[in-house]
Amino acid sequence: MLISELDTPALVVDLDVMERNLSQMAEYCRRHHLRLRPHTKTHKIPELAKKQIASGALGITVAKLGEAEVMLKAGLNDLLIAYPIVGPAKTKRLADLAIRAAVTVAVDSEEAARGISAAMAKRGSEVGVLIELDVGFGRCGVATENDALALAQKISSLPGLQFKGLMFFPGHFGVSPDERAVLRKQVNDFLDRCYEAFARAGLPFAIVSGGSTPSRYESEFFHGVNEVRPGTYIFNDRSTVGVSAATIEDCALSVLVTVVSTSVSGRAVIDGGSKTFSSDTYHAEHGRGFGLIKDDPATEIERLSEEHGHLNVTQSDRRYSVGERLMIIPNHVCTTVNMHDEIYGVRGEQVETVWQVAGRGKVR
Amino acid sequence: MLISELDTPALVVDLDVMERNLSQMAEYCRRHHLRLRPHTKTHKIPELAKKQIASGALGITVAKLGEAEVMLKAGLNDLLIAYPIVGPAKTKRLADLAIRAAVTVAVDSEEAARGISAAMAKRGSEVGVLIELDVGFGRCGVATENDALALAQKISSLPGLQFKGLMFFPGHFGVSPDERAVLRKQVNDFLDRCYEAFARAGLPFAIVSGGSTPSRYESEFFHGVNEVRPGTYIFNDRSTVGVSAATIEDCALSVLVTVVSTSVSGRAVIDGGSKTFSSDTYHAEHGRGFGLIKDDPATEIERLSEEHGHLNVTQSDRRYSVGERLMIIPNHVCTTVNMHDEIYGVRGEQVETVWQVAGRGKVR
Repeated sequence: MLISELDTPALVVDLDVMERNLSQMAEYCRRHHLRLRPHTKTHKIPELAKKQIASGALGITVAKLGEAEVMLKAGLNDLLIAYPIVGPAKTKRLADLAIRAAVTVAVDSEEAARGISAAMAKRGSEVGVLIELDVGFGRCGVATENDALALAQKISSLPGLQFKGLMFFPGHFGVSPDERAVLRKQVNDFLDRCYEAFARAGLPFAIVSGGSTPSRYESEFFHGVNEVRPGTYIFNDRSTVGVSAATIEDCALSVLVTVVSTSVSGRAVIDGGSKTFSSDTYHAEHGRGFGLIKDDPATEIERLSEEHGHLNVTQSDRRYSVGERLMIIPNHVCTTVNMHDEIYGVRGEQVETVWQVAGRGKVR
Repeated sequence: MLISELDTPALVVDLDVMERNLSQMAEYCRRHHLRLRPHTKTHKIPELAKKQIASGALGITVAKLGEAEVMLKAGLNDLLIAYPIVGPAKTKRLADLAIRAAVTVAVDSEEAARGISAAMAKRGSEVGVLIELDVGFGRCGVATENDALALAQKISSLPGLQFKGLMFFPGHFGVSPDERAVLRKQVNDFLDRCYEAFARAGLPFAIVSGGSTPSRYESEFFHGVNEVRPGTYIFNDRSTVGVSAATIEDCALSVLVTVVSTSVSGRAVIDGGSKTFSSDTYHAEHGRGFGLIKDDPATEIERLSEEHGHLNVTQSDRRYSVGERLMIIPNHVCTTVNMHDEIYGVRGEQVETVWQVAGRGKVR
């Protein structure tokens, strides 16, 4: 089958670019002795998780328990759930999962740790635990080395929990090198204080898991980090390019769409809107546009209805006509993939494979 | 099963409120002699489409061919696809669909009309056609009465197409009564010019399909409109309330979530982010917040990560703790439902039913 035979909208992955992205990250991690544990929230596809393992990852990261279950079913059995698991329904499933796979979870509260421990004890299983640190993003994570140590000591005393180390997400990292240097210093100071406090208390640990998209090729500059969890790198997207973490040529996934209307002056309408791309905005250039039209960057996708993309065609010489097809790089590939049931893998003009987004919709 | 036994995040519909919404719209349409053809893009659930028919709708509206196929499979056989159907793959499926159901499509270009006609002629089927007018929203639709007439005449001359009337979407209608009155006059002037041009040309038609959420209970003020396509009214949402088209008490759907972290000062984190709510912003009060916390409106959902909702808890006296559950009215219920596989119908504290979102993911 050829790309030209695919109906639209369709998610199309350039396999050559994707494979290059996988090798590049694996090579970076090998060079810097970092364990690679890719975040599969970006694709939610077990076949792609297996490609990541084949390229050198030691295990995978997921956001949700339901995603972990899908991945384990497909044979992926070293799983980090980088998310607080809270509530009896989930801790029970976690305990079942931990019987069958090597599972680690992130925790930032004693409440969460106690709930998990109770379920593990009941089921007779054991789970690894990373303590999440808030290094400035202000989402989850403990704020000080003393909080981290107190929580680690608590975890070490609870049945079914094995304290494994620390985890953080520097999601607030900016674009400029100067800004990044300042933030890196803050993170490293916090990490150093933790290492000192834990050493003083005689509480050793093996894992320090860090990284984020903007900082992904700078993980070697974080003190003591020995594991990274990059997600978007497999595909990249307009926002990854916007924060200078990739180039347009590194973007493997495009949304193939059709122009369905040109009747309004100055406009063209494509058959993809917020239910195809997601409404996520662009994290650069003042957030303009809902995607990049590959062969006409001057034309902005100004607005999205649910099923219509509104193109402002007044800034380009290109003329649009009903029925023609466009390739668009989405702003945020993770939320785009999350709304689709399948992705097409292509090489040149040939459709080589189709993957089901098996982890999509596993919201719990 | 009780609501308290549902795991989170979960979409929960208050059946009493939903049934009241359905009756109210049906009653309004009966009173004003408007044919009700609800847009099922809001729920994508055949069982709910059937409830809409049972409450007085004469047929349904869908956005995508794939949604139409799901609805027909479930027995709904009077379908308006309010979207331009473009490309050979889709026109072939449309022709197959039109053999088995009463199907009408919206068209705003000769290219689209010709493509559909060719597929109909080949299959020996027939489809009704509405011409979409652009009444100022600037998305799809022809701009003048002469364009509308020329396209209608073309459609009347093509095999397999039956010209049925006009359709428009006043999606640009504002909140203030004054603003609405001005826009209504513009729309009515355009409609009047169309009626005159078509009468002069001797081209009669039966349907004038109008309406939008802000204007939904004002459809009787549009000249000649005899059919409406409301969607959101079955559930309503924060944006419907924001444009004064509903009250909080009319919002039938809530997202049930759990607080999973309170470790960052001034914050609480819930287990739903942009992959649970969608990133759609709020169309009132300067767009602040990604949903309304039902029992604590002062606390803003300030930001969404993919799986985390970031609550700013500094403006409220309420204290949040890990493990507690909240009900949240989403900004835009259509895009929220679109990311979930099922919805729970509840009455009081009892979970009465669960529906599969069967049309979800039917992007083509």
